[in-house]
Amino acid sequence: MHAEEKASDFPARVITVSDRSFQGVRPDGSGPALVALLAEEGYQVEPEAAIVPDEQDQIAAALRQAVADDVALVLTTGGTGFAPRDVTPEATLSVVERRCPGIPEAMRAVSLAITPHGCLSREEAGISGHTLIINLPGSPKAARENLGAVLPALPHGLTLLRVPGPHDCAKSS
Amino acid sequence: MHAEEKASDFPARVITVSDRSFQGVRPDGSGPALVALLAEEGYQVEPEAAIVPDEQDQIAAALRQAVADDVALVLTTGGTGFAPRDVTPEATLSVVERRCPGIPEAMRAVSLAITPHGCLSREEAGISGHTLIINLPGSPKAARENLGAVLPALPHGLTLLRVPGPHDCAKSS
Amino acid sequence: MHAEEKASDFPARVITVSDRSFQGVRPDGSGPALVALLAEEGYQVEPEAAIVPDEQDQIAAALRQAVADDVALVLTTGGTGFAPRDVTPEATLSVVERRCPGIPEAMRAVSLAITPHGCLSREEAGISGHTLIINLPGSPKAARENLGAVLPALPHGLTLLRVPGPHDCAKSS
Repeated sequence: MHAEEKASDFPARVITVSDRSFQGVRPDGSGPALVALLAEEGYQVEPEAAIVPDEQDQIAAALRQAVADDVALVLTTGGTGFAPRDVTPEATLSVVERRCPGIPEAMRAVSLAITPHGCLSREEAGISGHTLIINLPGSPKAARENLGAVLPALPHGLTLLRVPGPHDCAKSS
Repeated sequence: MHAEEKASDFPARVITVSDRSFQGVRPDGSGPALVALLAEEGYQVEPEAAIVPDEQDQIAAALRQAVADDVALVLTTGGTGFAPRDVTPEATLSVVERRCPGIPEAMRAVSLAITPHGCLSREEAGISGHTLIINLPGSPKAARENLGAVLPALPHGLTLLRVPGPHDCAKSS
Repeated sequence: MHAEEKASDFPARVITVSDRSFQGVRPDGSGPALVALLAEEGYQVEPEAAIVPDEQDQIAAALRQAVADDVALVLTTGGTGFAPRDVTPEATLSVVERRCPGIPEAMRAVSLAITPHGCLSREEAGISGHTLIINLPGSPKAARENLGAVLPALPHGLTLLRVPGPHDCAKSS
């Protein structure tokens, strides 16, 4: 990582996707856990996770708002599984212009080494405008494990995405 | 796996995709092998694999029929390679509303550990309605190896997909 | 690999995607490196890499020309990262009729074992007509590493794609 690639340059937002947390039936565990983790890493993270229900339109609207607000990094948590209302990946794919398939691949490879259920995660990642969106599972433990697989690479990716000028490290041999 | 997550709750169907088996020129080897494997696992599997030719429309029609019949798990075998008539993944993507990329990723990772040709498999997986569709290769040996990579996770995934009510194991830490 | 599966049967072309190489500001390093590598492998590779700027329409036009020219194997290098003008994967997805997700998965798995930045590569692969298109990164070192992950499988895949007649090795157990 170059000296200028610092997490502290990048505004970040966490969006919890959960019908029950939205309804206030269950406290949001994974949203605050991810906010804390991003703060530790140095990101300019908003202190409260947003909470939206498992509705594709509302998830997509929250993602578009983050793009409009020029947030650099959006983490979603929840809605990536097989339940009929799990549609966070579909909302994400409807918003991004450029997919980043290596991010979910790396996260699922880590999950699979921990549990065979790792193959059930349908999480996606992609870029809209200057915003990187990464889906994470709804479990705080799985969300942290998954994010850990890609966290060391994100400041470099966000620098390429958002900081003008040539970044030749990716081009030289 | 929870006590209630039993393969025996789930109806399953195997669809062999092969011009030559459809024409009766070659016996279907992989279809019966997958039926036997699913029966061993306890699934309510239909005893005869359906056989369709390598025609995208006919494959898609067979998949839509399985969704209409409320089959829980559909395995296809064949048509996932590079030959010009291999279009099972395209038929599958045209039918599913929600992709499950972790399933083919886990299967190809197993294949790649066995042979460098593993990277040539174009198999996909996804959900339409309450039906999970998984593409497998046409070779009985490769189909079994691939399926083995995800089989332990399927009862959990199918329970999330089809059994109403909260399944909190995926949400707690 | 069967006796008939020889790289020497297949015409190949390298396309460098780089604004600065297109403008003559920077010499093209990865294009010639890939031409040399394909020549060593025995492919009928065109001796000069084509160079196009990071414009989705121009990349797609160069890919469609290669399909029209019946090139068997097209390697692109560059434009697969997070920079705003990196759109080679989007151009590729707009051209191919059949995706080959196992190829970028295998390449990123190799990259990830070398560097955590491997997850940032957005490369894709797919088939249009009888042409296989594979995206590689812009760095000569990373391009060679990535290609090395799939090179042993390509003569088999290209034979399935382009040589008429049954290829039963993929179907037998």
